[in-house]
Amino acid sequence: MSQIAMDLSDTLAFLDREFPQMNAGGLAYRLEAVGPLSARMRFEPDERFLRPGGTVSGPAMMALADYVLYAAILANVGPVALAVTTSLTFNFLRKPGTGPLLAECRLLKLGRRLAVGEIGIASEGSSDLVCHATGTYAIPPGS
Amino acid sequence: MSQIAMDLSDTLAFLDREFPQMNAGGLAYRLEAVGPLSARMRFEPDERFLRPGGTVSGPAMMALADYVLYAAILANVGPVALAVTTSLTFNFLRKPGTGPLLAECRLLKLGRRLAVGEIGIASEGSSDLVCHATGTYAIPPGS
Amino acid sequence: MSQIAMDLSDTLAFLDREFPQMNAGGLAYRLEAVGPLSARMRFEPDERFLRPGGTVSGPAMMALADYVLYAAILANVGPVALAVTTSLTFNFLRKPGTGPLLAECRLLKLGRRLAVGEIGIASEGSSDLVCHATGTYAIPPGS
Amino acid sequence: MSQIAMDLSDTLAFLDREFPQMNAGGLAYRLEAVGPLSARMRFEPDERFLRPGGTVSGPAMMALADYVLYAAILANVGPVALAVTTSLTFNFLRKPGTGPLLAECRLLKLGRRLAVGEIGIASEGSSDLVCHATGTYAIPPGS
Repeated sequence: MSQIAMDLSDTLAFLDREFPQMNAGGLAYRLEAVGPLSARMRFEPDERFLRPGGTVSGPAMMALADYVLYAAILANVGPVALAVTTSLTFNFLRKPGTGPLLAECRLLKLGRRLAVGEIGIASEGSSDLVCHATGTYAIPPGS
Repeated sequence: MSQIAMDLSDTLAFLDREFPQMNAGGLAYRLEAVGPLSARMRFEPDERFLRPGGTVSGPAMMALADYVLYAAILANVGPVALAVTTSLTFNFLRKPGTGPLLAECRLLKLGRRLAVGEIGIASEGSSDLVCHATGTYAIPPGS
Repeated sequence: MSQIAMDLSDTLAFLDREFPQMNAGGLAYRLEAVGPLSARMRFEPDERFLRPGGTVSGPAMMALADYVLYAAILANVGPVALAVTTSLTFNFLRKPGTGPLLAECRLLKLGRRLAVGEIGIASEGSSDLVCHATGTYAIPPGS
Repeated sequence: MSQIAMDLSDTLAFLDREFPQMNAGGLAYRLEAVGPLSARMRFEPDERFLRPGGTVSGPAMMALADYVLYAAILANVGPVALAVTTSLTFNFLRKPGTGPLLAECRLLKLGRRLAVGEIGIASEGSSDLVCHATGTYAIPPGS
């Protein structure tokens, strides 16, 4: 697949309209790029997402992985608001600091019924992953 | 193992002191029971955790699974504030409604270095799981 | 669901016909019971499956988990030779000895397109799990 | 980490001595390369590993992923015969044919107590993954 179905601005517009809750309480998760079988999202944690010891909460990283995977699928198959996460697996590798995180998603499979991707999350400016995830979305028939 | 290291009130006191952020913004996650290799937590979602279509967000359920697993480990090994999640796997089975969720955790292994548990999440009053999770915590040496 | 689609003898006959390779080289994996959303399989390891130190190989246990999940799905939805495993997650909890293993599978979801189950494997006569698994099968349209 | 602890020939010698069962019945799994945080293994399936419809068995691929992860750890930390797999997660993406498979492993974390890696498996000559896996090994104290 060398073509994407929606470019960055279309994908952003769709996410803003259909998933305003992603950034309820302040813009924290921002899609930065989409491409063939890929997407990148930046997460800038505010106080809600920080934890004692100067780190980011696990659930905030899990949400980031889920969002960027959804965005990669959207950009590549077009608007499928009803695609649902069926599984997610996380390995937490290192404690991140409190700075921004970048999540890079690569789709490993984009079938008619299932999409599977992997996500690497690192602190901005670092190549060491703090979290690695894989996940599956079910795509509704007829999409 | 037929004895627990901390009873419900001790575990609650420890969580309140060490993890106030679990319920920042309003009490939503409440530990209800601990026992040998087990714990149960109730989650009462308020608007922050709801999603269009009348369901609970995935990250809210992922947080619930992580918290109840941590509580089960705490109650069974005693206060180990530094235990860290190393992996979590989720299967999302059905969409929950907007009512309270119950998470039941069972520890499958409680070793000196690693603890592994499984968690079933269901809507209160239902026996159908909406989410199933397994997870691993690393326990620091000397705990 | 209180009815199964195939009883034990029908499920065994189907497996023998469609998956003779499961026991190529000698009968090792034997389905013992099927029920609503459940199945139980016994594995009697011969030398091919043993490892130095007196234990059973990981791949032999992974195959056992995959087979019993497939058998549970078969018994509950009827003959669907084309159902395919889409994901499997294993937690290895303790080293088994060299004796027989029992795998108990419980289906957590049996949808039209996806079936999800969990599997606990223990040495015969013990209640301590040596391995826990979860897995997903995709069920072909029209089954 | 830019240095490996054992080169390819030392790693091969260790595997042959400590894990002869990996290739019992005929050489099928062959380590081809090791490097900083990486390893590559080739699997040439013979009849034992093939399935009706012209594909390779799932357990054969699961074994391949486990072996190459172990080899990557060995090469990078030195001989630790007692390192044990604690978890493995597989996503099966496409059916492979009956030809050779290549498994590329990348270590995501190499800590003193836990090593985590991801593995991509593709048919030789193809860049499409047939299976993706992540796994964790526990490294014994004092290694």
